[in-house]
Formats: sequence, structure tokens, C-alpha cells
Amino acid sequence: MPLKTRLTQRLGIQHPVLLAPMGNVSGGALAGAVSAAGGLGMIGGGYGDRPWLEQQFAAAGNHRIGCGFITWSLARQPELLDLALLHRPAALMLSFGDPQPFAGKIKAAGALLICQIQTLRHLDDALRAGADIIVAQGSEAGGHGAQRATLPLVPQIVDRVAKSGSDALVVAAGGIADGRGLAAALMLGAEGVLVGTRFYASTESLAHAKAKACLAEASGEETIRTTTIDIVRDIPWPAEFTVRTLRNAFVERWHGAEAELKAAQPHEMGRYQAAVTAGDFATAGVLAGEAAGLCDAVLPAGEIVTTMVAEAERALAAGARRISA
Amino acid sequence: MPLKTRLTQRLGIQHPVLLAPMGNVSGGALAGAVSAAGGLGMIGGGYGDRPWLEQQFAAAGNHRIGCGFITWSLARQPELLDLALLHRPAALMLSFGDPQPFAGKIKAAGALLICQIQTLRHLDDALRAGADIIVAQGSEAGGHGAQRATLPLVPQIVDRVAKSGSDALVVAAGGIADGRGLAAALMLGAEGVLVGTRFYASTESLAHAKAKACLAEASGEETIRTTTIDIVRDIPWPAEFTVRTLRNAFVERWHGAEAELKAAQPHEMGRYQAAVTAGDFATAGVLAGEAAGLCDAVLPAGEIVTTMVAEAERALAAGARRISA
Repeated sequence: MPLKTRLTQRLGIQHPVLLAPMGNVSGGALAGAVSAAGGLGMIGGGYGDRPWLEQQFAAAGNHRIGCGFITWSLARQPELLDLALLHRPAALMLSFGDPQPFAGKIKAAGALLICQIQTLRHLDDALRAGADIIVAQGSEAGGHGAQRATLPLVPQIVDRVAKSGSDALVVAAGGIADGRGLAAALMLGAEGVLVGTRFYASTESLAHAKAKACLAEASGEETIRTTTIDIVRDIPWPAEFTVRTLRNAFVERWHGAEAELKAAQPHEMGRYQAAVTAGDFATAGVLAGEAAGLCDAVLPAGEIVTTMVAEAERALAAGARRISA
Repeated sequence: MPLKTRLTQRLGIQHPVLLAPMGNVSGGALAGAVSAAGGLGMIGGGYGDRPWLEQQFAAAGNHRIGCGFITWSLARQPELLDLALLHRPAALMLSFGDPQPFAGKIKAAGALLICQIQTLRHLDDALRAGADIIVAQGSEAGGHGAQRATLPLVPQIVDRVAKSGSDALVVAAGGIADGRGLAAALMLGAEGVLVGTRFYASTESLAHAKAKACLAEASGEETIRTTTIDIVRDIPWPAEFTVRTLRNAFVERWHGAEAELKAAQPHEMGRYQAAVTAGDFATAGVLAGEAAGLCDAVLPAGEIVTTMVAEAERALAAGARRISA
């Protein structure tokens, strides 16, 4: 049955489950499948590849979806926002940078503005930009992120949003892969969850089959936050953000030897990119979060949503029975 | 009203709230106050100061309490366990080391064995020792801890314990300071919570008044996991554990310069210890977790328990109403 929250009302969806717009992973098929199951799928705009983006919007068919961008990267190719808005996304998500310069255009296009934040300063930026939905992302998340952990971050953000007078809704991200995490997020005051790692290992995900298998096999303990993957790819990420990835031979070699990697970068970049193409995950990164320890199989995205919601509903019902009469 | 779980039944308490046995902070008065409010207070055995421990058991009066030790440190002074068991604690908690050598004596004395774990390997050790209660501690906790975050760690530990066939109960620790965190922990499959930071800033806590004030003022963003505080104090902690503390001038000076600090240690130790005595928290550490962002006042421990439980009950009741009929 539907799990109603203020988020499902605001987004016009059935279940408070959002797909994290993971670059090169959250394509149109995955976004469409999450929306078809009652959540909200979002295409991952990544570093901005126009033909890829067009292709993914096409692959989503007529499903009502959203799209997400890396804010600092979008600032270098602002025309990508116009492209995305032409497809009338239900929501446009911005993360990693000040959303202010893009907020007006997004709202004028009738899309809800989702801002992902990692710190209190980011929250201030998001509120100033008039965010409709604020995703509080904890450090346990896969891929790019920062330092704070989800469990203490979310209620603090909920309190600050309430105090600000904004009616923005808070969504929890980082470490959530099943219905228990969804139910826990609701207890913390979030109105829903944004899920990456669990959908990375979905049938429809564009991740390499071997990367999905690595994730499903991982215990969740072998992830690490590192800058090595951005250094080798020569992507100028702001210093406050690092990437959580599964440890592999590449990370073991270079993490802690970043200056050396910078010197070797012109050579290492080619080797890294060849590994990405070849599906060699001893070198290429699998950008999974700690929730990898809760994922042991690659599953269809629709089944992930349905199972997660059913499990959350069971947990919520059991929780109420804890209270003695 | 009482918030019943299998943990409250097993421990014979009213609410599933355990005081973290923080060394030099969780004394007899604090432990007694938590137990009096329906939770379970535990004295923090720390590095083992026999007269202090005797004094704290006396300060707890007739309240039914527990006691916690740092396992690797207890191994160097095993007679402290006998001292604690003479006081017939309801539970004996061990953390940071293999509990096996102490398990038999604890159980023979009629105390429940609580093992705090940070990794899957620690979980194996705890299960092998026959733990009655397993505390899964996330990295956001204050003081000593490791890498995994609470939100994805707890359900994974719950699953592994169930799969092992053990009837040990799982308790969540790290990042929990209010009823929302307690309710979230129950959704994750925990049967209760272990709370440190929130009680650090309690009236009965033995922390310095200025340290409590620093914690109450902190936003939760300024904590860091570091080894500097153990280096300067010359305490031989195993490399897998670091201390989460509020950033201050001392940490800013030495974090990242650990080799230099080791060289300067004979001199710096005196300066550090003088700062602890003087209540100079630009140098001395305030071992708070990220939940500091949820604590803005020093409160009586009993009020903390009561408020936390009432808030959790409201969250649980509201959660059940989310499920559409």
C-alpha cells in the first residue's frame, strides 16, 4: 500500500523513495523503473554529456522523472539545465555547490528544486535558493559527499529548516538500502529517502555488470572516502568533497600518496580510463556506500522499491506496538 | 509510559536507554540517575583507577547499574573486573578488544555480558564470547570508535546476529541524542540505544563544567576522529581505534602531524594534562560525538531519559499513522 508523507504529496508520487541521480549509473531506464514503481527516478546528469543526457531522457519514455546535476560542474555548462528542463522533469536536483544561480530558471519551468546538502552552510545556501526539498546526505553515502553521518545530521537539519520558517521538506540520504532505513529516516523527521547504492546494484542500472557484482559481494566495511579517483581523472572537485568507493588495488596504491599521484596523473589517467572501459575494478572505482553491506544481489529496481516500502510498513507497524497501553 | 523491547525485558529495566560508560564522565551519580529514570546507568571504568571506581560505585547508592571497561586496558589490570563484579552489576560492558578471556567470570557472577563492537570481526569475537547484548557503535559516536556509520551498520549487525543463531540483542550507539534517534534505532532492528554525548552534557556528568558548555554550544560539525589525544597522553590504543573530539587549537596543531607530536610528546604531555586539570579546552579534548549538534543545554539525566522516551513514543505513533489503510 502507499506510504504517504508530505514528500509523496508534494512530488505527486506514491512512495517516499527517490533514486539518487548517479552519473553514468542512473540512466533513463532506471529512473523510469523507479518512477513506475511509485518512487521518483532521477537521471544523473554527471559532468554533462549532452548526447548521453538526450539518450537517457528518451530511454525514460513517458515516465514522470527528475534529473540531477553536480552544481559546480553545471556552472561550467549551464546550457545543460535548459536541455533538462525542456523534458519537463518533475524535479531538478542540485548538489555540490551554490544552487542560487539556477533556482529561478528551475522554478520558472515548473520543476521542484531539490538541493542536496552535506553541511549547515550548504543548508543556508539551499534555503536562500528557495529549495522545495532538501536532501541531507551523510558521509556513509557512496560517491561524492562529505563528513557528517546521516543519523545525527538529519534531525539537526529538520530542526534548522523548521526554525528558518521554510516549508522545505527534508529527505535522508546515505546508508539507506532497505525498509528499515526508510522507516528510520521517517523517525528522524525526514519525509523520505534518496537511495543510491541499492539502485547501483539494480538490473536497470548502467553500472558495469562486474561493478554490480563487486558491490553485491562487498561487506560494507571496505569502503573509503578518498580524493584519488578525482585526482586521476583530473576532475577539479572542491576540497570539501571526497568520493566513497570500494577499496581496490588502485586506492590501496594511491590513497595517502596523493601528491605522488598528482605527479603521475598524466600517465595514470589513461590506465584508469582503460580500466573503466574494460571493467577492471581492481583499478576502476565502484562508487558504493556503506549500505553495500545490506545489498547481496542485483535486483530489478521496481522490486527494490516495492520490497523497501513493504518492509518499512512492517517496521512502522511493529514500532507502534512497542508503546505499552 | 514504558517503552518495552526485548532489551528492557532482558535487563529488567523500563526504557531501552543505556548510559555509555564514559571514563571520567559516567560516574556513580550519573549512572544512578539514568537507572532511576528507568534506563540502565553504567559506570565508566576507563583505564582503571581502583579508588575512583570504588568511590563511584558508592556514589551510585542502591541503584541497579552496570559498569563498562576498555577491554585491552582491563587485560592489563584484570583484578578490576573482580572489584566491579563484587558490586553485583546488572551488566558488564566490554569494548575495544576480545571479550573472551573475561566472559566466563562475568556470566558466573550473574551479570549480563554487553559487548560493544565496531566491525564484523568484533561481532564474531562478541558472539564467540557469548555476549547477551551487542552494542553496534557507529563512527559518529564521541570518544573512541572506528569507521562504520550507525545507520547502515545496525541493520547489518542485526542480520548477522540472527543468522548466527545467537539470541543476543542489538543496541545502537553513535549519533543518538533524542527520541527521534531512539525511534530510528528501533526501526533499524535494534532493541535499544546506548547514549554518550547527550549524557556527557548532563548535570550529573563528571565532565568539567566548561567541557559541558563547549559541547552544548557545538554545532556537531566541528568534531573529528584523531589519534593525537592518545599520542599526547601516551595511551597505547590499537591502531584501528581513533577518538572523536571537538576540534580545538590542540587538534588543529597536531592532527596530520602525528610523527612530530610523538617526538614532542614528553613535553606536550605535561602541557596537555595541565590543561585537563585547569579546564582549558583549547588544549584538552571534549570527547563529544556528532550528536553534539542535537544538544544545546546541560540537563538533568533523568529529564534526558524521560524526554527521549516520550519523544520516541510520539515518533513511533506518528510513524504508524503514515501507513495508509
